[in-house]
Amino acid sequence: MPTDLVIENTTIVTMNAKREVLSNASIAISGEKIAAIGDSESIRARYKDAQFIDGRGKVVLPGLINCHTHISMSLQKGVTQAIPEGLYKVMWPVEKALTSEDIYVGALIGGGEALLGGTTTVIDHYFQMEEIAKATIQLGLRGFLGHTIMSRLGPVTGEQELKEGIDFVSRWKGKHPLVTPMLAPHASDTVAKEWLQQIRAEADRQDVKIHMHLAQSMREKTFICEQFGKGCVEYLNDMGFLQPDVFVAHCLFIDDPELDILAKSGARPLYCPMGHSLGGHVMRAWELLGKGANVLIGTDCVTSNNVMDLVGELRIAGAAQRQMTGDAAAMPSLKILEMVTVDAAKAIGMEGRLGSLQPGYLADLVMLNMHGLHAVPNYSVVDNIIYACTGRDVETVIVNGQVVVAEGKLCTVDEEELIVLAEEQGRALMKRAVEHDPELSWLWKQ
Amino acid sequence: MPTDLVIENTTIVTMNAKREVLSNASIAISGEKIAAIGDSESIRARYKDAQFIDGRGKVVLPGLINCHTHISMSLQKGVTQAIPEGLYKVMWPVEKALTSEDIYVGALIGGGEALLGGTTTVIDHYFQMEEIAKATIQLGLRGFLGHTIMSRLGPVTGEQELKEGIDFVSRWKGKHPLVTPMLAPHASDTVAKEWLQQIRAEADRQDVKIHMHLAQSMREKTFICEQFGKGCVEYLNDMGFLQPDVFVAHCLFIDDPELDILAKSGARPLYCPMGHSLGGHVMRAWELLGKGANVLIGTDCVTSNNVMDLVGELRIAGAAQRQMTGDAAAMPSLKILEMVTVDAAKAIGMEGRLGSLQPGYLADLVMLNMHGLHAVPNYSVVDNIIYACTGRDVETVIVNGQVVVAEGKLCTVDEEELIVLAEEQGRALMKRAVEHDPELSWLWKQ
Repeated sequence: MPTDLVIENTTIVTMNAKREVLSNASIAISGEKIAAIGDSESIRARYKDAQFIDGRGKVVLPGLINCHTHISMSLQKGVTQAIPEGLYKVMWPVEKALTSEDIYVGALIGGGEALLGGTTTVIDHYFQMEEIAKATIQLGLRGFLGHTIMSRLGPVTGEQELKEGIDFVSRWKGKHPLVTPMLAPHASDTVAKEWLQQIRAEADRQDVKIHMHLAQSMREKTFICEQFGKGCVEYLNDMGFLQPDVFVAHCLFIDDPELDILAKSGARPLYCPMGHSLGGHVMRAWELLGKGANVLIGTDCVTSNNVMDLVGELRIAGAAQRQMTGDAAAMPSLKILEMVTVDAAKAIGMEGRLGSLQPGYLADLVMLNMHGLHAVPNYSVVDNIIYACTGRDVETVIVNGQVVVAEGKLCTVDEEELIVLAEEQGRALMKRAVEHDPELSWLWKQ
Repeated sequence: MPTDLVIENTTIVTMNAKREVLSNASIAISGEKIAAIGDSESIRARYKDAQFIDGRGKVVLPGLINCHTHISMSLQKGVTQAIPEGLYKVMWPVEKALTSEDIYVGALIGGGEALLGGTTTVIDHYFQMEEIAKATIQLGLRGFLGHTIMSRLGPVTGEQELKEGIDFVSRWKGKHPLVTPMLAPHASDTVAKEWLQQIRAEADRQDVKIHMHLAQSMREKTFICEQFGKGCVEYLNDMGFLQPDVFVAHCLFIDDPELDILAKSGARPLYCPMGHSLGGHVMRAWELLGKGANVLIGTDCVTSNNVMDLVGELRIAGAAQRQMTGDAAAMPSLKILEMVTVDAAKAIGMEGRLGSLQPGYLADLVMLNMHGLHAVPNYSVVDNIIYACTGRDVETVIVNGQVVVAEGKLCTVDEEELIVLAEEQGRALMKRAVEHDPELSWLWKQ
């Protein structure tokens, strides 16, 4: 039987119903679950034989849930930087050159970076999801995973992708503690109406959730408007698609009445702060929250954002919404933290098991080192987590009771090997992409 | 005679006229200056007896110039968080309780944090500047320092402050290699017109630069408009105040015609990306650059921004301007890097001595560790510095030839002592502030 693990003498941001922050506290982990939380002295008495981690100067919080990622896009880091419509002009052309190995290695890099930055769960959307599932399991990262389905445009389309998207769900449902399959149509304009209807029916039949992009570009909005005479949100809502089990990333190009439709539908808008700001269009997240929408937060991929640092992303969530609304009191720190913990856990159907640190919950947690000049004086722990810390303060990460990051280093894969592999594999991908499409030759000039 | 210092086998972002990025290169430092830059083999042959630093996987760039700081406000970290008009409602009331010791300790914390984040020069503005000069010298931080002068409102006003502001310049001019004094009127509404005229004349007489706030709040704009029937920029310009030797922070509440006046005046608008976004009002920096204005970048204080991480601030500069303009190609990475190196060096009158890595220049430089999952594949070094790195990647900092940060730790002061001191001194300040002004009692509930 594995030894119990105790983090002691620490500050615990529980995110429980009372949002208690405990000082000089300990958290004990047995197997995959949190066994106890309490004052350090009594926990030490109870868990004499445990392995102890000293938490002085540190803060323990629930593992963060990154609600929109493409972890395997790490080999495409920054390639759309400062390129308007980069999705169409760079990303899709490069993706045509992707191999299974690229996707697997990319997922190790992106998933590894996510773990190092305090993410314990990703909601991921990409091609060849089988490779990504292999990588997340290897990393010890919790994944809500959906195989991208497209019927038109993009780099990989066709009936076999619809079949694979549905088969992926059947294959993985209930198979591994870290993997929960989802259905993942690409977007409102890239998946035929009949396919969307079939995916909606399949989600109901198999009781799984749906993750997609929605109104992410003006092209998408224009296409739907021309085809169906309405906005993207209206279009999906009218066909009965938008329900609380649907995660919709971006929602940038939507009309005012669609804000209300989206909020009322119960669907989960996924706000990606840095990617949105860099792209010049930002989700009206604070307004949507005001209308009762369950807005969640994601980093998106390193092609649109450059990094997978969810702690760092949280301050952008606040800054960008305050900039947008002109309201310096918008997006209070606690709300932002709720969005990547309790709110996200509820959305993925893990309420009572994830998102909060309480006995009986799964042991997904992050320990930040706040003992530094950037975080003192520490008048408000939650404000400091959001506005003074980044993922670089993450010291320890535990997923499902397993220590996957210790002393700021991955425990599950060799980071050094991965860094070397990233450079080799990335350059080979770009070389292949340019061979496929000579118009991409500028990629080599970067 | 001190040993020469060589960083070898590294990537050097020179920011020279050709903006060359050199691979497998070395940089040699003798005394306070850069002695040579070249390929690692030939430099090693020339500097056999030097002390060598291995730069593999690292990137060396010019020391960053943070053009608007209040380093000593570190004891007020986050106290205006989410409080509209926090300047008036919290900052000034708390500042009434500041002691000289608070200002000195605060400057060590804020200056230390700035150094750790890759800043080698600060342009600082605050009360009791003598204490701050003491702290910057102790830290080994280069300071362009101005003693805050106010005639009305704020926490410290009066004729003696005008005198001290001018005396500070006389006392420090040419006295210490790290200290350059400036004149520092507070803002257009808090300094009487006659005082501003006297300060302008004094700047000309003593040949020093001026650093102030301008149009930072709606209150300021309203006051100037009521008193003088014009906007803040127009007001200063009409009295002949705005010239290229004037650094004006924020410029948030200005009319469209004032954008042109500001650009034409040659004055240096100081853009503070995170503080502006968090406050809900952002400088139209990209537009001003388009009009030929010499926009520079600052972090402002940890009361408005929470951290003094200039590398991290650079990505916000890009993101916030792209969000504001809707232009995903705005603020190219190289331009952002120029703003905190060559452009800033020119503005402070240090062209040819700072802002670029070239033989004969002062040895102010920063070495970032980019050997991590967040920065690979490294297709574009400059994009990665701006959009993938933060100050937490800073490993070595050299100012005026002196190593002030090594292996991510301050060499000049004891960080551990400073962290403990920050908590004690900060809480004592807040206690005193509440005693002075019971309306601040909520500060204790944070």
